[in-house]
Amino acid sequence: MAFKPLHDRVLVRRIEGEEKTKGGLIIPDTAKEKPAEGEVISTGEGARKDSGELIPVGVKAGDRVLFGKWSGTEVTIDGKDLLIMKESDILGIIA
Amino acid sequence: MAFKPLHDRVLVRRIEGEEKTKGGLIIPDTAKEKPAEGEVISTGEGARKDSGELIPVGVKAGDRVLFGKWSGTEVTIDGKDLLIMKESDILGIIA
Amino acid sequence: MAFKPLHDRVLVRRIEGEEKTKGGLIIPDTAKEKPAEGEVISTGEGARKDSGELIPVGVKAGDRVLFGKWSGTEVTIDGKDLLIMKESDILGIIA
Amino acid sequence: MAFKPLHDRVLVRRIEGEEKTKGGLIIPDTAKEKPAEGEVISTGEGARKDSGELIPVGVKAGDRVLFGKWSGTEVTIDGKDLLIMKESDILGIIA
Amino acid sequence: MAFKPLHDRVLVRRIEGEEKTKGGLIIPDTAKEKPAEGEVISTGEGARKDSGELIPVGVKAGDRVLFGKWSGTEVTIDGKDLLIMKESDILGIIA
Amino acid sequence: MAFKPLHDRVLVRRIEGEEKTKGGLIIPDTAKEKPAEGEVISTGEGARKDSGELIPVGVKAGDRVLFGKWSGTEVTIDGKDLLIMKESDILGIIA
Amino acid sequence: MAFKPLHDRVLVRRIEGEEKTKGGLIIPDTAKEKPAEGEVISTGEGARKDSGELIPVGVKAGDRVLFGKWSGTEVTIDGKDLLIMKESDILGIIA
Repeated sequence: MAFKPLHDRVLVRRIEGEEKTKGGLIIPDTAKEKPAEGEVISTGEGARKDSGELIPVGVKAGDRVLFGKWSGTEVTIDGKDLLIMKESDILGIIA
Repeated sequence: MAFKPLHDRVLVRRIEGEEKTKGGLIIPDTAKEKPAEGEVISTGEGARKDSGELIPVGVKAGDRVLFGKWSGTEVTIDGKDLLIMKESDILGIIA
Repeated sequence: MAFKPLHDRVLVRRIEGEEKTKGGLIIPDTAKEKPAEGEVISTGEGARKDSGELIPVGVKAGDRVLFGKWSGTEVTIDGKDLLIMKESDILGIIA
Repeated sequence: MAFKPLHDRVLVRRIEGEEKTKGGLIIPDTAKEKPAEGEVISTGEGARKDSGELIPVGVKAGDRVLFGKWSGTEVTIDGKDLLIMKESDILGIIA
Repeated sequence: MAFKPLHDRVLVRRIEGEEKTKGGLIIPDTAKEKPAEGEVISTGEGARKDSGELIPVGVKAGDRVLFGKWSGTEVTIDGKDLLIMKESDILGIIA
Repeated sequence: MAFKPLHDRVLVRRIEGEEKTKGGLIIPDTAKEKPAEGEVISTGEGARKDSGELIPVGVKAGDRVLFGKWSGTEVTIDGKDLLIMKESDILGIIA
Repeated sequence: MAFKPLHDRVLVRRIEGEEKTKGGLIIPDTAKEKPAEGEVISTGEGARKDSGELIPVGVKAGDRVLFGKWSGTEVTIDGKDLLIMKESDILGIIA
C-alpha cells in the first residue's frame, strides 16, 4: 500500500536513537525527547505559485532531512508510524 | 440527487471501521474516536490563482484520501453523512 | 424592484421545511434550527484577480445551493427575507 | 463645494424613513435603528490591482445602494451628513 | 529647509478653526476636538505594486484634503506642526 | 570595518542635540527623549517585488532622514551606536 | 557530514567573545548575554517569488553576518552548535 502526499506535502519516517546519521547530527539537549531527524518516504508533486507555475518539492524519497520538532501530522501506514508535513517544515538535507 | 462542490471544494464520504483500506492505514490511537480516511464523491472544478489561471483539484471521485480529523462541514445527502471540505484539507491519496 | 449584488456577492433566498430539495439534502440534527439550503436570486458580475482579470461568479439565478449556516447579511426586499453573501460562502450546487 | 473621494472610496448620503425606496427594501427589525440604504454622491476613480491595472468603482453618482450598517466615516459637507466608505462596504445596487 | 516624504507618504498641514474651507466642510461634533482637514505640503513619488509598477500619489501639494482624525505622525518643520501620513489615510480632496 | 545591510535595510546614525538640521526640524515635545533624525550610513541593494523585480532603496549614504522613534535594531560598529532599520521605517528625506 | 539548508535558509555558526570581528562590531550591553554575530556555513539555493522566479540567497559560506538575537533554530552537527535561520533574519554582512 502506498500513500501519495498532495501538492507540497512530504511523507517522512522519523529516525531515532541508534539509527541516526553517523558523524552525528544531534538535536540539542532541550529537544532530546523528540528528535527531528527523518527519512523522506514520498512527496507530492509540488505547489503552484500565484503565477500558476508548479514548483517541484525540494526533497525526494530517501533524503535524510531535519525538520521542526513539532512539525507534521502523525499517521500509521502498514504498521509504521510516519509523519505528513509541508515541505516548508523541512529545514534542510543531511548529505 | 447530486451535489456539485464549488471551486476547490471536495465532497467526501468518511470511511470507518471494517471498510478501511486493506494493508492497513491506521490513524494512531489518540485519534481513534474519529478516523480521517475517506472516499472522494465529487469535486469542484478547481480554484483560480491570482494570475487568473484555473488549477484543477488534485483528487477525483473514487480516490481514497486521508484528511485532517476536524476538516470539513458535515452534510447529509440522500441519507448519507458526508463532508464538504477544501482540497487543501486533504493530506494525500492512498494508492 | 430589483437588487443587483456587487462583484462576487450573491443574493440568496433561504429554503426551509417542506419546500426543501426532494431526495433529501438534509443538514444534520445539530444544525436543524437554521438549515442552510437556498435559491440564488441574483449575482454580481464577479471579482477581479490581482491580475485584473474578471472571474465570473460560479452560480446563477435559480441555482439551489448549500451555504454556511451563519453566512451572509439579512435583508428584506419586497417583504421577502433574503441573504446577501459572498460567493465563497456557497459550498456547492444541488443538481 | 465638492468632495472627490480618493481611489475606491465612495461618498454616500444615508436615506432614512419616508424617502426610502418604493416597493420596499427594508432592513430587518434588529437593524431598524440605523438603516443602511443610501445614495451615491460621488466616487473615486477606482483602485489599482497588484498588476497595476486601474479597476473603476462599480457604482456611480445617483445609484441607490445598500451598505453595511456600521460602514464608513461620517462627515458633514455643506451642512449635509454624509458617509465616506470603501466600495467594498457596498453590498449592491437597488434598481 | 524642505522635507521630501518617501514613496506613498504625504506631508500635510492640519487646518483648524477660521481658516477652514468656505462653504463649510465640517467634521461632526464628536470629532470637534481634532478636525481632520488639511493642506498637502509635499508628497512622495508613489508606491510600487507587486508588478514593480510605480503608482504616483493621488494628491499634490496645495490640495485640500480630508483625512482620518488619528492619521499620521506629528513632526515640526521650521516651527510648523505638520503630519506625515500614508496616502491611504487621505479620504479625498475638497474641490 | 564596514557593514553592508541586506536587501531593503538601511544603516542609520542617530543625530541628536546641537548637530541637528539647521532651520530646525524638531520632533515635538512628547518625543524629546528620543528624537528620530538620522544620517544614512549605508544601504542594502533593495528588495524584490513578487514579480522578481529589484527595487532599489529610496535613500543613499549621506541622506538626512526622519524615522519612526522606535524603529530599528541598535548595533555598535567601531564604537559608534547605529541603527539597522527597514527602508519602510524611514518617513522621508530632509533636503 | 554536510547539511544543505532548503530554499532561503542559512546555516550559521555563532561567534562569541575573543573571536569577534576586529575593529569591533559590538552588540550593545543589554544584548550581551547572547551576541548575534556569526559566520555563514552553508545556504539554500534561494526562495521563489510568486512569479516563480528563483531569488538566490544574499549571503554565501564564509560571510560574517549580524542576525537578530533570537533568530534561528539550534542544531548540533559534528559536535558544533549551529543555527538554521531564514535569510530574512540576517541584518547584513560585516565586510
